Amino acid sequence: MRATVHVFLKPGVLDVQGKAIEGALHGLGFPGASDVRVGKTITFDLAGDDPAKAETEVKSMCERLLANTVIEGYRVEIG
Amino acid sequence: MRATVHVFLKPGVLDVQGKAIEGALHGLGFPGASDVRVGKTITFDLAGDDPAKAETEVKSMCERLLANTVIEGYRVEIG
Repeated sequence: MRATVHVFLKPGVLDVQGKAIEGALHGLGFPGASDVRVGKTITFDLAGDDPAKAETEVKSMCERLLANTVIEGYRVEIG
Repeated sequence: MRATVHVFLKPGVLDVQGKAIEGALHGLGFPGASDVRVGKTITFDLAGDDPAKAETEVKSMCERLLANTVIEGYRVEIG
């Protein structure tokens, strides 16, 4: 099974990387871009064939390693 | 309109961040994870209301700033 985890900053947390990209886009002649937010996508193969069990395992990975849950949220896709 | 850009390393390019995460997952008791790949997701608001024009503009942003097309691919979603 292939698991995909989307990790993104929670709303309200200042996204400095996004701000830098927004400034660069404006400087390159794309003034229409605003509210730029940057997240991470982590994909991996997972042993086993029970999607429900896999989702539980991946959520545990997120809580323990993949996301900093103080400032980041995450979304898990299995399949 | 909200644009989402997924940027990921091309197949065959060594993903050192993914390898580090894979090692950490194994160390934390998740031996089933393999082939870990890490990508970026950039989302932003875009002025205008023509999806086709927006997609062309966002692809131009990818080529010029958001992706290093030597080693990275990208996928654009508008909506």
